[in-house]
Amino acid sequence: MAPTPLEPESLGRSRGRLSVVGIGPGGKDWRSAEAVKLLTQASDWVGYGLYLDLVSDLDTGVRQHRFELGEEERRARHALELAAEGRDVALVCSGDAGIYAMASLVFELLDTGSSGSPVSDAARRAEIVVAPGISALQAAAARAGAPLGHDFCAISLSDLLTPWDVIENRLEAAAQGDFVVALYNPKSRRRTGQLDEALEILRANRPGATPVVIAANLGRDEERISTTTLSDFDPDMVDMLTVVIVRSTTTRMIQGGSRPRTYTPRGYEAKGERP
Amino acid sequence: MAPTPLEPESLGRSRGRLSVVGIGPGGKDWRSAEAVKLLTQASDWVGYGLYLDLVSDLDTGVRQHRFELGEEERRARHALELAAEGRDVALVCSGDAGIYAMASLVFELLDTGSSGSPVSDAARRAEIVVAPGISALQAAAARAGAPLGHDFCAISLSDLLTPWDVIENRLEAAAQGDFVVALYNPKSRRRTGQLDEALEILRANRPGATPVVIAANLGRDEERISTTTLSDFDPDMVDMLTVVIVRSTTTRMIQGGSRPRTYTPRGYEAKGERP
Repeated sequence: MAPTPLEPESLGRSRGRLSVVGIGPGGKDWRSAEAVKLLTQASDWVGYGLYLDLVSDLDTGVRQHRFELGEEERRARHALELAAEGRDVALVCSGDAGIYAMASLVFELLDTGSSGSPVSDAARRAEIVVAPGISALQAAAARAGAPLGHDFCAISLSDLLTPWDVIENRLEAAAQGDFVVALYNPKSRRRTGQLDEALEILRANRPGATPVVIAANLGRDEERISTTTLSDFDPDMVDMLTVVIVRSTTTRMIQGGSRPRTYTPRGYEAKGERP
Repeated sequence: MAPTPLEPESLGRSRGRLSVVGIGPGGKDWRSAEAVKLLTQASDWVGYGLYLDLVSDLDTGVRQHRFELGEEERRARHALELAAEGRDVALVCSGDAGIYAMASLVFELLDTGSSGSPVSDAARRAEIVVAPGISALQAAAARAGAPLGHDFCAISLSDLLTPWDVIENRLEAAAQGDFVVALYNPKSRRRTGQLDEALEILRANRPGATPVVIAANLGRDEERISTTTLSDFDPDMVDMLTVVIVRSTTTRMIQGGSRPRTYTPRGYEAKGERP
């Protein structure tokens, strides 16, 4: 697949490249071939230290620029400035680079400078590639059965950048629409009450027996996945690295030997074959 | 209904396996390592002929069971019965096996038999693996920039299995919640009016200038991706293999050289770094 230039093609191939790379949830099995290729070709990796550790098997002498959790804007700016110098930079994200990850921040910096000063003209001329990856909700769903088999939505509970009333409105809408709901960023060190409020909104519209999947560290040795119900849900089962999937009123359970599986049927009535 | 037992562990390793494998949108670059491994190990591939063609480079003498588009239940039943015979079967899906694909149908067959007779006990004892993959909305988003950078939802417009009033209610909810909306199955040969109605619902809640991404055949030679607006949208630009992403009121555009990029900022206000 040819990477797509952001700036006029007349600038030639000498300019740098910034690949915003989604490595999936962490394990090697869920990486895309494109992510492996971009990471292997890169001269520089930029990212949260833990994410760089997750791809260390692909390091053949790359320059690593390791950041702490939370330094997202600094990370993205640093990656853009390295690309401005003509380097081939991989900005490493977990999951999908475009879903609650760094790709939108990179475009925000190119567009408005986000909360800081505008990026350099040289950074603006860099080639930008976004590499999608398997997101936490997909990995959790695959392990749990097929809860995303019909319409679903993803909502982040972080109110650091989004006012709580906007998030609350989305939760109400998701409840009214009977979507399967994947909750990202359910908690942080400073923020714990939102998850309770979110579940309260969903409980008002779904039976207490509605199954809930709680998943963390998917595809890694520390993988944890459990299933509970809306009424039995205990927010202490959740930390900031967890994704929570609350199923719709049509989602069903199958009890298995090693663990239960859950699925959301394709429709509300069995009418036979699709066209 | 009482939950149905699935795979007691005492049955041991001699039983067959059914892997429901998401191969991504079509190109090799967007396959996961797990999908490649499961397809390479399988004794049998089952799927829509076009999807099997997309992975033909991995065929080292596998038995292929090719089906026509629309024979979804027949395909899934055939795959389960092969696994019941002890074979290692890959049921091949495009995109993510769990998102508008075959995984939920497999569990539905194991649970209720869907619209037909119950599956055999031997099929119930098969090991079931779901392999996630990059879905069309993620591939379209990556090509278009980062429109899924904040909360989003996926809605299928196919009313063959879901009554239109349920779909309409979801569209209303998505509009009210200001979600970025990915529309799957926007059209079929027999069904064209739903897309107009869906856009009408979204137009009532979003400015006419709201950007819309139209994407098809992502990652293949025939890749088509274009950007228009809600008011300029022409349903003739869309066929049954297209995914349509309608952006939220906060999604922004950056004009580039070869094509525009779009992104949805992480929040509504720039408040600085995240925790």
